[in-house]
Amino acid sequence: MSNTPVTRLPGRNILAVPGPTNIPDAVQRAMVVSMEDHRSTKFPELAHGLLSDLKTLYRTADGQPFIFPSSGTGAWEAALTNTLSPGDRVLVPRFGQFSHLWADMAQRLGLDVEILDVDWGEGVPVERIGEILKADRQHAIKGILACHNETATGVTSDIRALRRVMDDAGHPALLFVDGVSSIGCIDFRMDEWGVDLAVTGSQKGLMLPAGLGILCVSQKALKMITQAKSRRCYFDLADMVRANATGYFPYTPALSLLYGLRAALDLLFDEGLDRVFARHHYLASGVRAAVAEGWGLELCAKAPKWHSDTVSAIVVPQGFNAAQVIDTAFRRYNLALGAGLSKVAGKVFRIGHLGDLNELMLMSAIAGAEMAMLDAGIDVCPGSGVGAAGQYWRTHTQAAADPVAKPALRRVAAA
Amino acid sequence: MSNTPVTRLPGRNILAVPGPTNIPDAVQRAMVVSMEDHRSTKFPELAHGLLSDLKTLYRTADGQPFIFPSSGTGAWEAALTNTLSPGDRVLVPRFGQFSHLWADMAQRLGLDVEILDVDWGEGVPVERIGEILKADRQHAIKGILACHNETATGVTSDIRALRRVMDDAGHPALLFVDGVSSIGCIDFRMDEWGVDLAVTGSQKGLMLPAGLGILCVSQKALKMITQAKSRRCYFDLADMVRANATGYFPYTPALSLLYGLRAALDLLFDEGLDRVFARHHYLASGVRAAVAEGWGLELCAKAPKWHSDTVSAIVVPQGFNAAQVIDTAFRRYNLALGAGLSKVAGKVFRIGHLGDLNELMLMSAIAGAEMAMLDAGIDVCPGSGVGAAGQYWRTHTQAAADPVAKPALRRVAAA
Amino acid sequence: MSNTPVTRLPGRNILAVPGPTNIPDAVQRAMVVSMEDHRSTKFPELAHGLLSDLKTLYRTADGQPFIFPSSGTGAWEAALTNTLSPGDRVLVPRFGQFSHLWADMAQRLGLDVEILDVDWGEGVPVERIGEILKADRQHAIKGILACHNETATGVTSDIRALRRVMDDAGHPALLFVDGVSSIGCIDFRMDEWGVDLAVTGSQKGLMLPAGLGILCVSQKALKMITQAKSRRCYFDLADMVRANATGYFPYTPALSLLYGLRAALDLLFDEGLDRVFARHHYLASGVRAAVAEGWGLELCAKAPKWHSDTVSAIVVPQGFNAAQVIDTAFRRYNLALGAGLSKVAGKVFRIGHLGDLNELMLMSAIAGAEMAMLDAGIDVCPGSGVGAAGQYWRTHTQAAADPVAKPALRRVAAA
Amino acid sequence: MSNTPVTRLPGRNILAVPGPTNIPDAVQRAMVVSMEDHRSTKFPELAHGLLSDLKTLYRTADGQPFIFPSSGTGAWEAALTNTLSPGDRVLVPRFGQFSHLWADMAQRLGLDVEILDVDWGEGVPVERIGEILKADRQHAIKGILACHNETATGVTSDIRALRRVMDDAGHPALLFVDGVSSIGCIDFRMDEWGVDLAVTGSQKGLMLPAGLGILCVSQKALKMITQAKSRRCYFDLADMVRANATGYFPYTPALSLLYGLRAALDLLFDEGLDRVFARHHYLASGVRAAVAEGWGLELCAKAPKWHSDTVSAIVVPQGFNAAQVIDTAFRRYNLALGAGLSKVAGKVFRIGHLGDLNELMLMSAIAGAEMAMLDAGIDVCPGSGVGAAGQYWRTHTQAAADPVAKPALRRVAAA
Repeated sequence: MSNTPVTRLPGRNILAVPGPTNIPDAVQRAMVVSMEDHRSTKFPELAHGLLSDLKTLYRTADGQPFIFPSSGTGAWEAALTNTLSPGDRVLVPRFGQFSHLWADMAQRLGLDVEILDVDWGEGVPVERIGEILKADRQHAIKGILACHNETATGVTSDIRALRRVMDDAGHPALLFVDGVSSIGCIDFRMDEWGVDLAVTGSQKGLMLPAGLGILCVSQKALKMITQAKSRRCYFDLADMVRANATGYFPYTPALSLLYGLRAALDLLFDEGLDRVFARHHYLASGVRAAVAEGWGLELCAKAPKWHSDTVSAIVVPQGFNAAQVIDTAFRRYNLALGAGLSKVAGKVFRIGHLGDLNELMLMSAIAGAEMAMLDAGIDVCPGSGVGAAGQYWRTHTQAAADPVAKPALRRVAAA
Repeated sequence: MSNTPVTRLPGRNILAVPGPTNIPDAVQRAMVVSMEDHRSTKFPELAHGLLSDLKTLYRTADGQPFIFPSSGTGAWEAALTNTLSPGDRVLVPRFGQFSHLWADMAQRLGLDVEILDVDWGEGVPVERIGEILKADRQHAIKGILACHNETATGVTSDIRALRRVMDDAGHPALLFVDGVSSIGCIDFRMDEWGVDLAVTGSQKGLMLPAGLGILCVSQKALKMITQAKSRRCYFDLADMVRANATGYFPYTPALSLLYGLRAALDLLFDEGLDRVFARHHYLASGVRAAVAEGWGLELCAKAPKWHSDTVSAIVVPQGFNAAQVIDTAFRRYNLALGAGLSKVAGKVFRIGHLGDLNELMLMSAIAGAEMAMLDAGIDVCPGSGVGAAGQYWRTHTQAAADPVAKPALRRVAAA
Repeated sequence: MSNTPVTRLPGRNILAVPGPTNIPDAVQRAMVVSMEDHRSTKFPELAHGLLSDLKTLYRTADGQPFIFPSSGTGAWEAALTNTLSPGDRVLVPRFGQFSHLWADMAQRLGLDVEILDVDWGEGVPVERIGEILKADRQHAIKGILACHNETATGVTSDIRALRRVMDDAGHPALLFVDGVSSIGCIDFRMDEWGVDLAVTGSQKGLMLPAGLGILCVSQKALKMITQAKSRRCYFDLADMVRANATGYFPYTPALSLLYGLRAALDLLFDEGLDRVFARHHYLASGVRAAVAEGWGLELCAKAPKWHSDTVSAIVVPQGFNAAQVIDTAFRRYNLALGAGLSKVAGKVFRIGHLGDLNELMLMSAIAGAEMAMLDAGIDVCPGSGVGAAGQYWRTHTQAAADPVAKPALRRVAAA
Repeated sequence: MSNTPVTRLPGRNILAVPGPTNIPDAVQRAMVVSMEDHRSTKFPELAHGLLSDLKTLYRTADGQPFIFPSSGTGAWEAALTNTLSPGDRVLVPRFGQFSHLWADMAQRLGLDVEILDVDWGEGVPVERIGEILKADRQHAIKGILACHNETATGVTSDIRALRRVMDDAGHPALLFVDGVSSIGCIDFRMDEWGVDLAVTGSQKGLMLPAGLGILCVSQKALKMITQAKSRRCYFDLADMVRANATGYFPYTPALSLLYGLRAALDLLFDEGLDRVFARHHYLASGVRAAVAEGWGLELCAKAPKWHSDTVSAIVVPQGFNAAQVIDTAFRRYNLALGAGLSKVAGKVFRIGHLGDLNELMLMSAIAGAEMAMLDAGIDVCPGSGVGAAGQYWRTHTQAAADPVAKPALRRVAAA
């Protein structure tokens, strides 16, 4: 709001945007590396290990992961241009800024984009897509672009159910999934869900600076490479397939980030992916308790089934401007909250709760959001958010109840 | 109190002990240095700059600062052995673990230590000392050892007043001050208060890892070096005076910490010492609001005049064990609180509020302490601590009202 | 050669490939940053400063620089797709692996590529191009793609002369320049030479890890954006122009590398660009003395006018395999030399002499190359390379004689 | 010797002083740590591991290692004050600046110091000491202070032989050994050689910044603690023994250095101590070849049996000033050579060859020393030093021939 310059505020900036996320010490350290020859006989050890371990992250046996020096947006482009040709029809449910931008990219790359507009606050309309697919007897639709977790609204969609309606319709379209703000945070199952192309970036669940675009591709999708007529070179998968086979990259890789990725994957596997997912659900549940029980406010996500475990978009009461809350939080309390984008600009502020995070780091964000709301005149009870979140966390455990099912949190008996 | 091993807890450990403190990024970065020849013609530029800027930190024109590769304890020893001889009488008010340890060191170094025991929770008994000094006609007392800020109890003493009674008595004893947990955080005035030897360490207000013991010495005290008969070599000031004069050290200095010190001093001076002190007072006031107004608990410090702006020792209610609160905070919430030491073990837990800190970093500590107290069965209202601290901070500013006087916080008019 | 695994060799790996280059401490440090919100009100300060200072690096007043999270290859693609349309004719002199790859990219992006093959070891055939342009009365040629410094052969071309023949022919084609291994090392003058699109990457003269693709675009070229029909989205300049105007990026920027870039530009400007160029010329001259006078070997570059100041490709005598020299250097002496690529594979090894480098760092590479050649049976005199380089450096200064002209090295009078 | 200020020279400073040494990346990284509570239940894991692994470094089963926040000088003081009383007689062979300084410290701490002056360039006079001990029937001599490796002259003494003459004399004096520039580089055997107190610092073989003083104490020496009357507090071992037993320290430890020590020990053990020693011998032999065969100069060490594997002091020809060589090396070639100290000032310059080092890192130093000598007018043949060292290294391996005996280098058969 104000245009006065921001001087250094003492202490640590509390980073509560939904990416980039906080870098763990072990990852920060791992990036302090001297440069080395990326064509040496030593280099493949690093590359092979990363590519192999990304399969574990994606929960895939058959898929092939790729790492680009790019943002996640670049990996979106790689997914589309390597498997589709200009004029190909794709179906894109749109319910937030990031699903919007992906649809926009598809159009600019010359695809025939059929947009399914959905209210912001809801997710992928699985049944409606099922009907469309059944009606598409000629299989004109070549791909479906689904945002697993819409970062703008804090909505998670059911990709497993989407695959089911695709299968029910016997439809061969490729399933493209944007997992930028879900992979490494929320359960994601490439093989089990039949995902064909899954995109992520380094700066969310992987706890790195931005700079790596990561894509995993099913064998079915890989076969499309030879016939896809979209022009590409930098993001060409054929070059990558060839070079990666021997542990190299077609051009100079972003070495420091690769070493950071090594450390980040080690951290995730040490904790255990199921426990990582359970922790995200547990932490998100506490934030939602702060919003609903503490502050009496509502989320942008319209129903519990859409609740995202990585980001909550919180609706400010009528008559207030969320941008003012965000601005005060940043300038006065050194807290970075996520802004409302596009349709929900001014209406919501967002708390990211993803990456290397725990209860008390989130307490800073909740307390700061509360103070900034009070400063903006929003009538919340001081301490209510933290109180509600704390009560939630004190009375639940974050242990993964069942490593396959969605993590169910267990009440702490003795509490 | 459990003995089960502690595995890595996700997210950042919330460090709320009264030192070591959180290292700012700029300081962390500054310590990533290649080694260099500490006898090179380039080295003195660093050394001279640090020694000169430490004078600014100590607010001294005439005093001479020294940097040892040691902890603050080493600087204590340097202060005593360079100015006193075995058998010399020193007066040591004792009201906490650190004043106790200093007295103990003085005894072990062969001094004749007269201990003035004071209730833990109070500070230097200025009037009583004044009387003792007046009675000491022969000036048998050679030094007074005063803890400016007793870290164990969260008590700050009035060194200016102590100097006044010394002057009133016309007593020539040297004034030794332990400023380990005050210098760089709480107003400290070497020259104005007539301090002769002032000790600090790198890991508190200077926001560095431990490893540097820092001592500032008045010209009066420097003159004692030649006649002081305590044996010393590593901590000998004469060697330092000689080597420092040309920008070198008598033995290999702790180079990475020196570069960190450079960055830390730059940060302090960029913020402005007065603003740094005002910020500490403002932050401490919020913590005290949490304790008193939020939780309804008491501080170990027995009166507002003793309240420390760098650490609060919080007394748990009768029948509860503070160690359990600390243990739960650490193991369950990844929060490091300070333990009660010696006489107050089990009775208090401590929140350090010093160094590169802001409101929301402290909110993590307050929220975590609250949750751990609730887990331990202590009946505090969830969210009450954070609520009270937040209300305090929202309605006050941290601007230094008057760069000379003790920072008076101003109520925010519009709030 | 051998397939046995490489274990850690003690000591520092001597990095003498022509990129990535050695990271200076100040740049390494600068990348140790906590993440922050790239949409904050604070962020534009960083972005504006970088974009403005890149103009100084490119020596342009009117050109506009762009920073992509990508390798230099990505910036190549950005240059082509934003200004050309499929079917557009481009002229590409080819005389090494990197000019070859750029031509290949142009073909894959659908351009009509006219390749001018030149012997490897020579550079851009300026006169021949002049004739072709004069013959192109219809101005069918839309662009000329020139490698300023061909990294594969160690050949630098005369871009100023190329512009002259373009002007002489009155030809409006865009001048594309690959400056990946020249910009920041060898004199480069965007405006003076009339370069329209100039590409570089972060891992050479900018002394950073790979991960940033940098492109500078003339106003003339910028005007082509609206009519260029090549599909692009990730590398679309229009999005960048819009976002950069307010100090932001269209997608999450590679934050740690941006902070590194800040430090790298500061280092370059502190030294002074002219002095940086003079230093590279001085260092390269010493390496060439080692090759010619010391070892009696030849460079791949066929004449002094082609000699590159950033990389030397050294031809091993007939009957020897350069790959064996490189393998021995790496496995036995912990030295990374550049391999011969494609046509010159096995025939040359390369010493990169660019980035943050000095005489003695190069002595390691020269000495190691010599030992590896001896191990491979190549008959060079032990110590001869280092002896010749040392004599050169001892008797010349690296001062920029004339800040405009190509740095002429002055003999040290007194030596 | 010019007094003009030194501005930043491009590239890496070549660090060839005998400590501090080059920090390996893995150690540098390990020190980028957030601070933590050194009284937490997690801390002892780090402390116990370090103390236990130091025993491996010292090759002791019975000795107890101690870590002080200090330089190695502090560990010297700890050794003396914890085991001796003022007036106790100690025998100190003196043959260089560091043996001189230790003797000086002993005097200042009130011991009765009997100095055995030996020509600089020789080492501990074992036979002479044997005679003195035999003559000391009353066992007035309480300790012998022996510099294992005199850093000032590049002389290594035979501690095993010293123990033998002590045993032959049946003399109970404590054996104090300064291993600052030997431990972790040159074979050192606490138990086998019957060393009672062995001192080192962090900045030599341990490849860390200065800041840790390390001392290992035999059980025999530990028993002296209770009766030693030298006053000490900071360096008191009794406090350490008590605190270390539970994994803590008596005062705040230098945390970042402790984490660095963890990484340094891991590196040493991964390479294998015997291989580390063999590598130092192999590297030193190459440097000596450069000096003798290449340059035709002499070492300060007067006979091969005194040759140090960690530092070579090279005597410049009559009529030249070594200080000028060092000054030119530093100012013109960015090379830090060690200066001659005290008696040998101006007569020698020193090349440190210890720590994380390999052949080509030393080539920088050799080449630079050669150029600086030539600049100073010393008549050495350009390239001769590097040529001789290279020939040595090419024709020998650094494998430890026999893990117990002094590493014998084997000629490479095929070379």
